[in-house]
Amino acid sequence: MTDTPTTPVKYRAIHLQAGRQRRVLHGHPWVYSNEVQMDTAAKAIPPGSPVRLLDPGGKPLGIATFNPHTLIAARMLSGDPATVVDHAFLAGRLRNAVAMRDALFDRPYYRVVHAEADGLPGLIVDRYGDVVTVQANSVFMDQRIDAILAAIDEVLAPRAVILRNDSTQRALEGLPEESRLVKGEIDGPIRLEENGATFFADPLGGQKTGWFYDQRDNRAFIAKLAKGKRAIDFFSYNGGFGVLCAVEGASSVVSVDRSQGALDNATRAAEANGVADRFEARRADAFNELERLNAEGETFEIVIADPPAFVKSKKDLAVGCRAYRKMTRLAAKITAPGGFLLCASCSHNVDPPTFAEQVARGLHDAGRTGRILRSAGAGPDHPVHPHLPESAYLKAIVMQLD
Amino acid sequence: MTDTPTTPVKYRAIHLQAGRQRRVLHGHPWVYSNEVQMDTAAKAIPPGSPVRLLDPGGKPLGIATFNPHTLIAARMLSGDPATVVDHAFLAGRLRNAVAMRDALFDRPYYRVVHAEADGLPGLIVDRYGDVVTVQANSVFMDQRIDAILAAIDEVLAPRAVILRNDSTQRALEGLPEESRLVKGEIDGPIRLEENGATFFADPLGGQKTGWFYDQRDNRAFIAKLAKGKRAIDFFSYNGGFGVLCAVEGASSVVSVDRSQGALDNATRAAEANGVADRFEARRADAFNELERLNAEGETFEIVIADPPAFVKSKKDLAVGCRAYRKMTRLAAKITAPGGFLLCASCSHNVDPPTFAEQVARGLHDAGRTGRILRSAGAGPDHPVHPHLPESAYLKAIVMQLD
Repeated sequence: MTDTPTTPVKYRAIHLQAGRQRRVLHGHPWVYSNEVQMDTAAKAIPPGSPVRLLDPGGKPLGIATFNPHTLIAARMLSGDPATVVDHAFLAGRLRNAVAMRDALFDRPYYRVVHAEADGLPGLIVDRYGDVVTVQANSVFMDQRIDAILAAIDEVLAPRAVILRNDSTQRALEGLPEESRLVKGEIDGPIRLEENGATFFADPLGGQKTGWFYDQRDNRAFIAKLAKGKRAIDFFSYNGGFGVLCAVEGASSVVSVDRSQGALDNATRAAEANGVADRFEARRADAFNELERLNAEGETFEIVIADPPAFVKSKKDLAVGCRAYRKMTRLAAKITAPGGFLLCASCSHNVDPPTFAEQVARGLHDAGRTGRILRSAGAGPDHPVHPHLPESAYLKAIVMQLD
Repeated sequence: MTDTPTTPVKYRAIHLQAGRQRRVLHGHPWVYSNEVQMDTAAKAIPPGSPVRLLDPGGKPLGIATFNPHTLIAARMLSGDPATVVDHAFLAGRLRNAVAMRDALFDRPYYRVVHAEADGLPGLIVDRYGDVVTVQANSVFMDQRIDAILAAIDEVLAPRAVILRNDSTQRALEGLPEESRLVKGEIDGPIRLEENGATFFADPLGGQKTGWFYDQRDNRAFIAKLAKGKRAIDFFSYNGGFGVLCAVEGASSVVSVDRSQGALDNATRAAEANGVADRFEARRADAFNELERLNAEGETFEIVIADPPAFVKSKKDLAVGCRAYRKMTRLAAKITAPGGFLLCASCSHNVDPPTFAEQVARGLHDAGRTGRILRSAGAGPDHPVHPHLPESAYLKAIVMQLD
């Protein structure tokens, strides 16, 4: 099944402004709108069109997606000006992405496509065995969703496909939010495997209860330290950290979350892995529960705090940083001497040194000392474009406290 | 065996200058010489003395090591002003460090003490089963070497102990370089285990052929990708990367190094692990061999380049960065499409973003695109002090190339 045209496709051209070609020539995949010759012709190009990107002298630099209305006007798809963006192109990129993951993982549970780094800017695809979720975060991808679904059918042959178009990035592109099943049927939570254990997610649920594969390796790291220890997991979500600690032999695990749906999935996972007797789902606001445990003086040998993003936009930076610092202080105070504390942040707007500083300050606020054993980002199924190091949004710091 | 004094020890005091107490109060473990009231009394304190550190108002901040002649004048040992630096103190810190490693590793092969992060500034201890190597990088630790060796005997009971006082840091403290056996006997290379395989190191050898445990997890990561693939390992040293690739099923491995002693250890490891038939030790300068393979157009599916530090001091930064960029370019060009490339730097003076930029540029110079699967530092037996993030010297970037 291919629909490669037999005659060359001629995409419309956009020109970089004089002196603005350097970054693209060095391999950067983005062109900002003020770097493009935004003349009447360029402005008239329908958002989401593939374009030929030309340097100021007219030399072709490659094929890009284009949206004259967004800050990032063009995103490179290929350095080859002859590239045709068709079914074969999409399926080829998808096939390469799957091959890379299959070299990393034994089982088909992972992020399949991670946007720019997989050569498909604006597209996110997650795989849960024979269920696949798709997120189109750009007009370009949104317009091609049928071709993308056809490519996914060809390469992954899923039983069910869910469109999870509920990201904030879509709003920036002027796209509506929606979540819906576009293939097959889903009855209840879907099953997935990670780090050798079974978990459940509910990507169609009313709450955002999908799964974040990005913490896979950080979960494995802290869980290996949990054997015979008392663990508590704040902002536990579906139990990726906490249930794995129990699977790895923690003597007891408390998972704290505000969402009953998430806690139900965590409990289901504890049962499926045969560790329900050592697992407690506790419905509470994490900060309230941290304050309460501090007041009671209860301690744990493994403490995990992996909250939702505290800094959703740059203007929240100061407030969010204080929240990370406070979270670390409260979590450190209930960490037993010799115990291990994991603090994480998935805020794009907080860079790793800034997060590390909040953690160091929170630790000191708690009157504790210790050492960082691990500073890590997302797992390898969330690759990073070499020229977009700032897109590495996840930060997890694991410390042992004295 | 303890020699804890029964009467309180009164160490000499040094005072911070007015307005200079903030960093220490926030948990930073260093005091620079221009932050201390360097009066006649302070200057007269013998280098290597423990001191009581006082804030400008005379409030005790804790116990530190002191050297009036070095840029870092004081290094915090404890925030408790009653701390006595005796055998029990040293053995206690050592015992905590061992307990943490034993939670991480099944086998006694790891870095036991990693200086500041383990509460023992200036001290490095590595463990190879019943052989231990010790490096004292400060006057304080050098003066206490007998007490340190006694603590090591008590906690680790090694068969043999080697003093590896050959670091450049010792020169900054005015200490001589020397390597010698201080306990037991060593006949030939010592055996060690890492990532389930056997390796050999020669910490007493004429060349610096010890072992760098810091790359343990990065070795495991790339080796897991090597199954059935052709691998080449530049600056291979004792074979930690290359031999592990063969153990994990690489169809062929070439280890390239200039040192015959290192290649002998790598070959010995290949034999010990039963993979000698898939292993070749190639004595060559890495850059020359990279140029030769580029000229011949030979490619590999796994390419590893983990060189010694190219930037040994800040003045070498520009030259060293060009060398990392060139290394990446040459290594990328011999990486087969779909193959994996690991580039590393152990230069303290090159921070992670700067190294990532050289790698991105080198990749582009090679005319290649790809994605970063892993950006990591040293393993967890090389912990980092929460207030010294810049001490995380190791950087390894693993990419898949298109």
